[in-house]
This record gives sequence, structure tokens and C-alpha cells, in this order.
Amino acid sequence: MCQSFVDYSSCKAGKPGSNLGICGVRFNLSPMSDQFSEIILSAIKKVNKEAIWAHTDHVSTVYRGQKEAIFDAVKSCYLHAYQEGIHIHFEATFSKGCPGDTDADYTLTLENNRPNQSQTSHITFPVIGKFAVYPMGSETYMTEIETIINQGIEQGLVSGSSHYCTLLAGDIHAIFQYLEDSFSFLEQHVSHFIIQVTLLCNIPEGEI
Amino acid sequence: MCQSFVDYSSCKAGKPGSNLGICGVRFNLSPMSDQFSEIILSAIKKVNKEAIWAHTDHVSTVYRGQKEAIFDAVKSCYLHAYQEGIHIHFEATFSKGCPGDTDADYTLTLENNRPNQSQTSHITFPVIGKFAVYPMGSETYMTEIETIINQGIEQGLVSGSSHYCTLLAGDIHAIFQYLEDSFSFLEQHVSHFIIQVTLLCNIPEGEI
Repeated sequence: MCQSFVDYSSCKAGKPGSNLGICGVRFNLSPMSDQFSEIILSAIKKVNKEAIWAHTDHVSTVYRGQKEAIFDAVKSCYLHAYQEGIHIHFEATFSKGCPGDTDADYTLTLENNRPNQSQTSHITFPVIGKFAVYPMGSETYMTEIETIINQGIEQGLVSGSSHYCTLLAGDIHAIFQYLEDSFSFLEQHVSHFIIQVTLLCNIPEGEI
Repeated sequence: MCQSFVDYSSCKAGKPGSNLGICGVRFNLSPMSDQFSEIILSAIKKVNKEAIWAHTDHVSTVYRGQKEAIFDAVKSCYLHAYQEGIHIHFEATFSKGCPGDTDADYTLTLENNRPNQSQTSHITFPVIGKFAVYPMGSETYMTEIETIINQGIEQGLVSGSSHYCTLLAGDIHAIFQYLEDSFSFLEQHVSHFIIQVTLLCNIPEGEI
């Protein structure tokens, strides 16, 4: 394997590498079950990918496209993986505006950018989890983080603050809507940002 | 549940909330096995926590203390969870210098800050994964990211770049050493930073 060095000397804070405004998410589904492989592969196949660019390898899956389309697709993947009683760990990195990004590997559709909505809206379950927001290249980043957390508290979806994260609890659809709204808020205030989130379903009972 | 709003108006970029330089990691172990609960709880219990502050809830586990102590503890937790043939997803958020941090919830020991090393150094296995580095409050963040990625390429631990992450592959101990070295590099160059990493072991064979 010959791996070339990277060169980001032409990258500048505040200047996205993609002129098309491509949004993206990279995620992992980890069903804590002996049947993990079937659950993951089946969920990935069930997602309607006509509105996104998608790639899965042994490490994770990435979707790129319009904001609405990537949120629709990644949420539907988690919904398709859901089975009663199966504890699933989901982690995702949402991002937009990286100065090192390029106008490649994307689908940008103008119509029907939520093709999975009608097939998956009946699947619903509670999740708990955590998230963190990273507005890049900005000295005022704590202000944007504060606004987003307080919006989640107002909506009853933020269950607490802890070291290195904000805690989440609520219905899966409400949580994804909050994450998408936070993404929209960041789009208006920051050139490059990341939302890192972990969502767990079917939590075992009992004390730890 | 009554959740108070957060107020970060006194936080300033470049000014860590902890004057003691507390380092931290928040992580999840997700064994994709019907025995996930026993594997997680057993691993967490086996970690020697004398050099760190530790807290586990239903969402994740957090360790706080000196850099060497948190890396020693979190690596040993993954090593203790390892079983031949069990596919485990590990995700961790390493962080230092958040303006919203405080001088609370920590252990800072001056001697023997790697108490788990001798018990776990014989456990070894290959991992693949991904990581991303977020230097906060700085306009030159792409430069620090470039330096860290190129150090990983030189060491043969970076297997590629992809959207929203850099890919990792190598021995578990070598990968953790690279992450700790990257943490040390960031300490010298950035007031507040995050390293987000995912490491998978016992990857199923076959095409996706």
C-alpha cells in the first residue's frame, strides 16, 4: 500500500471546498446481537438512495447530497434496522463546509428529497444518546453551541449536560428533527461545522 | 424533569475552563453479540481506575485525569472486552481545553499514571477504523489536521482519506499510541481540541 501525503495548504477557514453546498453524514449501526451482520446489511439495502450518493465499506457508510435527503436516508436506515428487544448503537458524523471537501461524490436532486419518509414514518421508538456540535474556524463557537443546546432543552429533548457532550432522550423522529434543525441553524452561522451524535435504542434495564 | 438552560457567555475561545489541564475521554464499547451486556460490564470492572476519575451511565463512560492515565484506562477497557471472533465497535471522544470545562470530576496522580499497562500489554489484535481531529477556535486548523494525518501516513497507520474522516488500520497498541501522540501534538498547538475515533475488531469477511 502506497499512501500519498495530504496537502491542505490551499484550504482556508471560511471557504468550503464544495461550491455546491454538499451536506454529508458518515455513520455506523452496531446491533448488539449475534445477527448483527444480517441486521446491518438488510437495513442498508432497504434505504431508498435515489436522492443521495452512498458508499459503504467495512468501516462505515457515507451519504452525500442535500440536507433533507441525507437526514431522510440515515434516519430510515436506523428505522429499518430496528427490531424489538435488539440494543442498537448508532453513531453519526454530520458535516458541511469542510475546506478540504470537493464537488464530487454527490447527488443533488431538486424534487422529492425525502423518498424514504412514507415507507418509514410508522416505525417509531424511544432513544437515549449524546451529541456535540463543533463549529470550526470561529472564535464565537461557544455561542452557537449554547443556542443549539437551549433549543433542545426548550423542546424537552436534552436530558442533561455532561463532560464532552449534551445528553439526548426522546422519540427517534423528534431527535432527528432536532438534529436537522441544528444543522440548519449552523448552516446560517458557520462556514464549516460538524455534529457528532450517538443514539441507543432498547436500553437494558438495571443499574450500572 | 426540569432542565436549566445553559449559559456560556463567560466562555472565551482560547481560555480553557479547567486551569488544571484535565484531559478526558468519553467512549462506548458495542460488542455485536447476544452477550454484549456481560462483555461491556466485565471490561469496565476490570479497568484499574486509581489514576482516573470515572463515571458510567446508560449512554457511555467518561474518564478524566492526566493524558497518560486516560489513554491507559480506555485502551485497557477495549483490551479487556476483546474476545476472539466477537465483532466490537468502539467509539471515543478525546478532548482537552473546552472553555466550558471546570476543575471538577478528576483524578490527577503524579506517579504510576499507567496502572493498567502491565496487565494488558499481552492482549493484542488488529483494528480498522476512522478518526477526525477538531482544533477549535482557530483559523489555521487545517494545518494541524494535515500534520497529524501525515504523521499517521509515515507510520503506516493511516490507510486512506475519505469524506469526513481519515481511515486507520493497524495493531491496537500502535493505533492508541498514534492517537496519544496526536493528542500531545494538539496540546502544544491548540487551546481546545477534540479527537473523535471509531475502531472495529474482528471484521466479518466478504464483500459489502
